[in-house]
Amino acid sequence: MSRAPDTWILTADCPSVLGTVDAVTRFLFEQGCYVTEHHSFDDRLSARFFIRVEFRQPEGFDEQGFRAGLAERAEAFGMVFELTPPNYRPKVVIMVSKADHCLNDLLYRQRIGQLSMDVVAVVSNHPDLKPLADWHQIPYHHFPLDPNDKPAQERQVWQVIEDTGAELVILARYMQVLSPELCRKLDGKAINIHHSLLPGFKGAKPYHQAYNKGVKLVGATAHYINNDLDEGPIIAQGVEVVDHSHYPEDLIAKGRDIEGLTLARAVGYHIERRVFLNANRTVVL
Amino acid sequence: MSRAPDTWILTADCPSVLGTVDAVTRFLFEQGCYVTEHHSFDDRLSARFFIRVEFRQPEGFDEQGFRAGLAERAEAFGMVFELTPPNYRPKVVIMVSKADHCLNDLLYRQRIGQLSMDVVAVVSNHPDLKPLADWHQIPYHHFPLDPNDKPAQERQVWQVIEDTGAELVILARYMQVLSPELCRKLDGKAINIHHSLLPGFKGAKPYHQAYNKGVKLVGATAHYINNDLDEGPIIAQGVEVVDHSHYPEDLIAKGRDIEGLTLARAVGYHIERRVFLNANRTVVL
Amino acid sequence: MSRAPDTWILTADCPSVLGTVDAVTRFLFEQGCYVTEHHSFDDRLSARFFIRVEFRQPEGFDEQGFRAGLAERAEAFGMVFELTPPNYRPKVVIMVSKADHCLNDLLYRQRIGQLSMDVVAVVSNHPDLKPLADWHQIPYHHFPLDPNDKPAQERQVWQVIEDTGAELVILARYMQVLSPELCRKLDGKAINIHHSLLPGFKGAKPYHQAYNKGVKLVGATAHYINNDLDEGPIIAQGVEVVDHSHYPEDLIAKGRDIEGLTLARAVGYHIERRVFLNANRTVVL
Amino acid sequence: MSRAPDTWILTADCPSVLGTVDAVTRFLFEQGCYVTEHHSFDDRLSARFFIRVEFRQPEGFDEQGFRAGLAERAEAFGMVFELTPPNYRPKVVIMVSKADHCLNDLLYRQRIGQLSMDVVAVVSNHPDLKPLADWHQIPYHHFPLDPNDKPAQERQVWQVIEDTGAELVILARYMQVLSPELCRKLDGKAINIHHSLLPGFKGAKPYHQAYNKGVKLVGATAHYINNDLDEGPIIAQGVEVVDHSHYPEDLIAKGRDIEGLTLARAVGYHIERRVFLNANRTVVL
Repeated sequence: MSRAPDTWILTADCPSVLGTVDAVTRFLFEQGCYVTEHHSFDDRLSARFFIRVEFRQPEGFDEQGFRAGLAERAEAFGMVFELTPPNYRPKVVIMVSKADHCLNDLLYRQRIGQLSMDVVAVVSNHPDLKPLADWHQIPYHHFPLDPNDKPAQERQVWQVIEDTGAELVILARYMQVLSPELCRKLDGKAINIHHSLLPGFKGAKPYHQAYNKGVKLVGATAHYINNDLDEGPIIAQGVEVVDHSHYPEDLIAKGRDIEGLTLARAVGYHIERRVFLNANRTVVL
Repeated sequence: MSRAPDTWILTADCPSVLGTVDAVTRFLFEQGCYVTEHHSFDDRLSARFFIRVEFRQPEGFDEQGFRAGLAERAEAFGMVFELTPPNYRPKVVIMVSKADHCLNDLLYRQRIGQLSMDVVAVVSNHPDLKPLADWHQIPYHHFPLDPNDKPAQERQVWQVIEDTGAELVILARYMQVLSPELCRKLDGKAINIHHSLLPGFKGAKPYHQAYNKGVKLVGATAHYINNDLDEGPIIAQGVEVVDHSHYPEDLIAKGRDIEGLTLARAVGYHIERRVFLNANRTVVL
Repeated sequence: MSRAPDTWILTADCPSVLGTVDAVTRFLFEQGCYVTEHHSFDDRLSARFFIRVEFRQPEGFDEQGFRAGLAERAEAFGMVFELTPPNYRPKVVIMVSKADHCLNDLLYRQRIGQLSMDVVAVVSNHPDLKPLADWHQIPYHHFPLDPNDKPAQERQVWQVIEDTGAELVILARYMQVLSPELCRKLDGKAINIHHSLLPGFKGAKPYHQAYNKGVKLVGATAHYINNDLDEGPIIAQGVEVVDHSHYPEDLIAKGRDIEGLTLARAVGYHIERRVFLNANRTVVL
Repeated sequence: MSRAPDTWILTADCPSVLGTVDAVTRFLFEQGCYVTEHHSFDDRLSARFFIRVEFRQPEGFDEQGFRAGLAERAEAFGMVFELTPPNYRPKVVIMVSKADHCLNDLLYRQRIGQLSMDVVAVVSNHPDLKPLADWHQIPYHHFPLDPNDKPAQERQVWQVIEDTGAELVILARYMQVLSPELCRKLDGKAINIHHSLLPGFKGAKPYHQAYNKGVKLVGATAHYINNDLDEGPIIAQGVEVVDHSHYPEDLIAKGRDIEGLTLARAVGYHIERRVFLNANRTVVL
């Protein structure tokens, strides 16, 4: 689970064909890399292969040479790979509105080192959460929404993402629908938390919807965004038992814990390179 | 939890108004009844009151007198009550198709006394599960479906329910849509198990739907039937974690355990008089 | 679940005897109080009765008169009762060492109103968590432990509890054994979180113990302290699945979430007056 | 999860050293085997390597040649491997006393094909469960215990295990302590279900122990037996929430579901070759 400080991650995927595993493991062996964990999965329905390997580098490890050599082998398989160095910490932009439970949770986990990431900016359409960001010494950008010019605000948001070089955007209860253009730009690199067990209770006020249906379980879904905000590939889901005595406001309160935990879990999987896109589904190794 | 052998259950509900609790508890005290567990809930949204009391009878308890006396008090409140004697065992008809996991589970729990019920008949549109019913010495009725005359089969089913005096019908993966007429007759006295976390994945092949959406949790829902088969008030829901490596057939296999447990839980609640209808929701005390 | 702003809580317990429920509910009715939720339990093994009622006061409610009147009725039953007004917020002292996950969680829940309490002081044998308390504008007392005079430090701690008038002390990973004297003073009014599924893995380094045993589940236990620190009545327990790939440091990381959630749940139950002592066990209504 | 009908399983373990993964995967590639799932784990504390691979055989696959070739490669690593053919069904002996919930569950799962095993005998010190075995057409051996000659009975048990060629023995609530001799013979090939979250509540009447401690969670542990019956390596654990209203008999009833599910899960892992012994712990891939 916990990587030693000198452990690299290699992830790759390609169409299913004989020899994929061997191509990766033989190369690692030839390079003198010591494999500590290996997980691969060949999806017989989508006919696609996914692999994730943790390894320790040999003395005098030459990253450039490693990448070049692997690229050569990978080409024959149409294999796309990613090499993640030890102590990798992606730059992250977090987007919020007024609810702070997910932000509080993410910043806490960053601070104690449970999530290895650098939150480089918090962006919001409201000023409310600035003190929380301040205390963690993270720049806070308040970009109010002009209902007559929503694209203007999105341009500001995008500018921050570009300027900071963020690799991951977390929608931590942002509560605004993103434009198809922004969704496209963020495809596969933005994680949203939706406060229901998607695909049930899409859209607004899902806890009120759940109350009205009289469900006995409520949950939350962390997923990549794509052009349909509530429809991207699911990374993680969490659930809690409820009963008749939970009014809508109780469901909302109960939901806070599930949302925070589920989002943090999904972000952790993403950072540890465990998540692969597989059409509209994910593989989590 | 476990009632002593001499414990009665009193349940009642009525519109919310001052004095409901006192009306019940004072009467019980006057009758010399010893309350062992009392749970009441006044729903501030539906403005309805629900109460469930377990009590031990005094020596020389006069059930008829008790009922008459309580009816008098209840009238002023528009209160409907039900009195359930110790060792009450409702007569139950179970309807199945070919899948036997829920039937096996229910009959097992009846046999060891975990569900206090008398299964008086198993009804099916297929002959497959007769040996299982036989072993438990329960009459098995095979009523094949004539696609050109579905009402004829439903009349046979209804005849069994009437002849046996069944108070509860359990649809233990019956897989057929009941007609609105039969649904109406069974309103509030038939429990169905649906193999999804309703209201998500209604209709046919819910596990295939869940697979295609790439969910990370699958579940089952036990509910009373009403005229829309997948829409009646929910009694209990269960859930299990799944991942990318679960193909549709794995979800189906995993679902068996959840379905069995969730259905058994709902049936237990019903038999113990814990479930109250509250418009399209339930209160479970 | 969520009390309306004008709802009182009445809790009581006494030896099992006929008439306990009626004594309470009749009095409430006579006073014109509107019961919104009522839960009582008569433990047939310990022969003790427990009751918790939520009610709305009538216009012109006279609290003093209510207390005096109920005391009279209660006397005959040896009944001890507690009356908790709407918007009750107990004063709380939190004790910590260096780990901040439970403190962070508790202060967050206080800030957003999920836990209705006033944290009047944070006390620690280390200075590390002062910034966190500062940000929440809560006084922080750093009382270092003198190994040659532990009683001196405990006197300082006790002084804070007395000066602030705290009704509840939360040991949020305090990591020090309290003296029997202090335990006695805190009997029933101090909640500890132990990082194991007590009574398993008592004492130091429970996650290392769990790793060595190869367990597949780890958990946490929130309990009242008594004179044996790891032995007081259990209020709540939480659990998480683990596997072979979790090294001891992973179990510790995983444990943080369980500890925080379990402790917060127990504190919430306590504040809402749901917890009753029943010899060395608790009743949670 | 679900293997296709033509899928083999290769498992192996050996001391940690560079080249272990490559040794296996290169050999599989050379043999033309198509890897569908691969999971390996190198335990940095015990310095031991574990691997499990599912693969499809090439046309004209020569099992003998495969075994011989792999043995050669494995030797250099001190690697012990096991090759499990498609549609492998181990012969299993189940030992029971009077409680039938685990037996019922196991035989049901065998019957519907969820557990790929052949139960060749049920052995008991009581005659009670014969009808259940009869219905499944499985030989039932009633070997009463002579308190003055327990070894005699164990010799009968062992004889059945030998005669049937059973590879796995399941203690499905057998309730008798096995002698050290029999434990030794069954080392690593017998799975027991203990009705507590081991190592808590060892020994007799664990649910009564749990009740007395006032725990809020009860559970069950499936583990390999070794010479200390309640101490063998844990394979799986299950848990359920309980409260003050659960008397010991309720905990026992609640425990039945957990015991059945947990034991079935462990047996499934064993049959699918997912479990590796790692000193007194297990690795489950």
